[in-house]
Amino acid sequence: MASLKQFDPASGTRDFLAAEYERRERAFATIRDVFSRYGFQPLQTPAFERLDVLTGKYGDEGDKLVFKILRRGEHEASGEADLALRYDLTVPLTRAVAAYGSQLPSPYKRYAIAPVWRADRPGKGRFREFVQCDLDIVGSSSPLSDAEVVLALYDALTSLGVPEFRFMVNSRHVLLGLLDAYDVPADLGPGVLITLDKLDKLAPEAVVAELVTGRGLPREAAKGLVDDLTAPDADARIRAELKSSATGQEGLAEVDRLLELTGDVIPAERIGFSPNLVRGLDYYTGIIFEVAAPGMPGSIASGGRYDGLIARLGGKDAPACGGSLGIERILPLLADTDADDYAQTDVAVTVMGEDLAADSFRLAAEIRRAGVRTGVYLGASGKFAKQMKWASDQGARFCVIYGNTERDAGVVTLRDMVSGEQTEVPLTEAAAELARRCAPTD
Amino acid sequence: MASLKQFDPASGTRDFLAAEYERRERAFATIRDVFSRYGFQPLQTPAFERLDVLTGKYGDEGDKLVFKILRRGEHEASGEADLALRYDLTVPLTRAVAAYGSQLPSPYKRYAIAPVWRADRPGKGRFREFVQCDLDIVGSSSPLSDAEVVLALYDALTSLGVPEFRFMVNSRHVLLGLLDAYDVPADLGPGVLITLDKLDKLAPEAVVAELVTGRGLPREAAKGLVDDLTAPDADARIRAELKSSATGQEGLAEVDRLLELTGDVIPAERIGFSPNLVRGLDYYTGIIFEVAAPGMPGSIASGGRYDGLIARLGGKDAPACGGSLGIERILPLLADTDADDYAQTDVAVTVMGEDLAADSFRLAAEIRRAGVRTGVYLGASGKFAKQMKWASDQGARFCVIYGNTERDAGVVTLRDMVSGEQTEVPLTEAAAELARRCAPTD
Repeated sequence: MASLKQFDPASGTRDFLAAEYERRERAFATIRDVFSRYGFQPLQTPAFERLDVLTGKYGDEGDKLVFKILRRGEHEASGEADLALRYDLTVPLTRAVAAYGSQLPSPYKRYAIAPVWRADRPGKGRFREFVQCDLDIVGSSSPLSDAEVVLALYDALTSLGVPEFRFMVNSRHVLLGLLDAYDVPADLGPGVLITLDKLDKLAPEAVVAELVTGRGLPREAAKGLVDDLTAPDADARIRAELKSSATGQEGLAEVDRLLELTGDVIPAERIGFSPNLVRGLDYYTGIIFEVAAPGMPGSIASGGRYDGLIARLGGKDAPACGGSLGIERILPLLADTDADDYAQTDVAVTVMGEDLAADSFRLAAEIRRAGVRTGVYLGASGKFAKQMKWASDQGARFCVIYGNTERDAGVVTLRDMVSGEQTEVPLTEAAAELARRCAPTD
Repeated sequence: MASLKQFDPASGTRDFLAAEYERRERAFATIRDVFSRYGFQPLQTPAFERLDVLTGKYGDEGDKLVFKILRRGEHEASGEADLALRYDLTVPLTRAVAAYGSQLPSPYKRYAIAPVWRADRPGKGRFREFVQCDLDIVGSSSPLSDAEVVLALYDALTSLGVPEFRFMVNSRHVLLGLLDAYDVPADLGPGVLITLDKLDKLAPEAVVAELVTGRGLPREAAKGLVDDLTAPDADARIRAELKSSATGQEGLAEVDRLLELTGDVIPAERIGFSPNLVRGLDYYTGIIFEVAAPGMPGSIASGGRYDGLIARLGGKDAPACGGSLGIERILPLLADTDADDYAQTDVAVTVMGEDLAADSFRLAAEIRRAGVRTGVYLGASGKFAKQMKWASDQGARFCVIYGNTERDAGVVTLRDMVSGEQTEVPLTEAAAELARRCAPTD
């Protein structure tokens, strides 16, 4: 009853064959290159952490999505877990900051591009193993740090070639000021923000209704809030509304400062104040942002300032801000025409007889030393036509033929696999000639 | 009672800060580069597999070392596992070959450099999360494939700069022929080989004793075997001994062919016939090899031909051979003087006043665009001495000073952080000048 299914990877996970693997690695290399040009440094933590490091950090819903690892040996029968796969890259960061604080530069600018695991229900574009690309600055409360994070993400998205993305910027203080201005009781605040976060998915009336019936807000306040946030002139209306709130004024100053600091680098059409941006997570304390791109619902990057989080996660208190590229959502947006024609080798070396095999390996070694990807024919049948088919299947651009005729003449025959043209080259010059022919032309 | 311990990574796992991370990545990049020059292509499989894919594949001892993942949601209470972290890269390879066989080139030459997890007792140089570097050729029974694997590993070790390593080559058929020649009953064969594998650790007499009392071999046969394998002229003695065994003759031909095929590339002092090489694993069917290096007990690379294994693991039967670099044992052997002076940035840009911060970001953006790693000062205090200390702590080679004086004159001041020398450069030429100064000189 063997079916193909039995050889599939586990539900929600993926195998990456060469072409797709290379495509992903190229994107990661671009991001790493940008992040390191900004002076962020890599941190690699293990795939799993002790269970107590992870539990209680992601709320009840998040905790359910953590993959737990069974205890081993005599303890396996207990059915208990003692380890768990990392759920994100932020908790491991806070553990590392706590462990190595004194060895780390201050502020500590770190990036990490690595898989995380969540036991989510697998679906279109939703995986149980997926890569996160995070960068964070720990130990600086300066608005310059928020700007540095936004600039690095902007640069990464531009370098990747993501078309027409846009940063939407807000501050938690703007939102808190707005709640102030509408006299929303402090204890209703968090719930109201969660509902307002749905403005990008629900109709305004539906959000008003939920604010009234679900959150207990007076109808007038609910309508006022939603009207302000969805008005075409929301920016101006909210600036006016916030005149009375010190918190609101602080938030506007944060947003304006970020736009000013990044304004010489990021064009105005790529970034702006979005007072209706809320962000679901409640740990943000200042600037928040998301990046939208045409053709992709939701955001392709996001982040903000989270000054209290490190202490909440068990570390020493330190101001922090950061951002994350949603690389699994970004990859489908990238034009990458190379993806399908992955070539295993550039040069294919034939084996024209058992006694010539060692010569073929020596030739291949010389060509490889010249930096060219080279395969030697490894089949059982040495038939010429079969070797040509193999060379062509490999995607080789040139084929090296070295038979008795060539050996006697001290030459090799180079065959252009596209034109079929064959030229003889002195044996000692073959490697250099192939390196020249295979050099990138652009 | 918080102790540093509580922030350590889980037992047997490691965090890699920037310097060590970069050192490891450089080695992996060298290996990837060599393997792909040989026409091996990457395959990436998920960190975990369905439990049934892994169990029963590693023997009783191996099975105990597999990290199992607890079922989730309502099934968590059952204490049962349904997934497990990969224990090696070979079983995932066989699953992928079974799943994608028709899409893969034939023979399929794949490499993988990736972590695996084993619940071993952690110790010096023994980790629960460690990287394996494997390359394999599936679908070719040609001796040329064994040669290609050995050549690629030789090239990788040379490119890494491992000093004075040596390939020890043998064939399972040589060992079986030897058992033949000493009339060892077939059913005692596997046990005898496991004992003979201890010749590199135990005294010859101890091995003889174990062969007699533990394996039930007549004393004369045991002594003959051990004498032959440990004699200074073992090569010649064993060749003579094997004259009577067809299997032995086949094995010698395999070894001689491998030495011939690689002989034009690998110097004679770096490879040789080692009749007393046994290899613990019982799945090898032809050529086997290990690589030894001075200063490192045990082997730093190993491999061989394992024609029956893919069928045993549940895949379609296919001939296969491969090898693995023990990268965690190789890394300590590499001289790498850069490791300790990891520099976060090459250029440090000061912020000489709140109103000049946007200019500093624009300047940094230009320098980064020129390919130079650049940090902007993100501290709260803008004091000059503090900024210079920060630049120096970062390992920056140059510092960019852009204050009101510089702005009025349309220049920037570049400070050489080693000599302390300061020069003024026109604002528009600063990025190009720094790119020139920071370009690699070798």
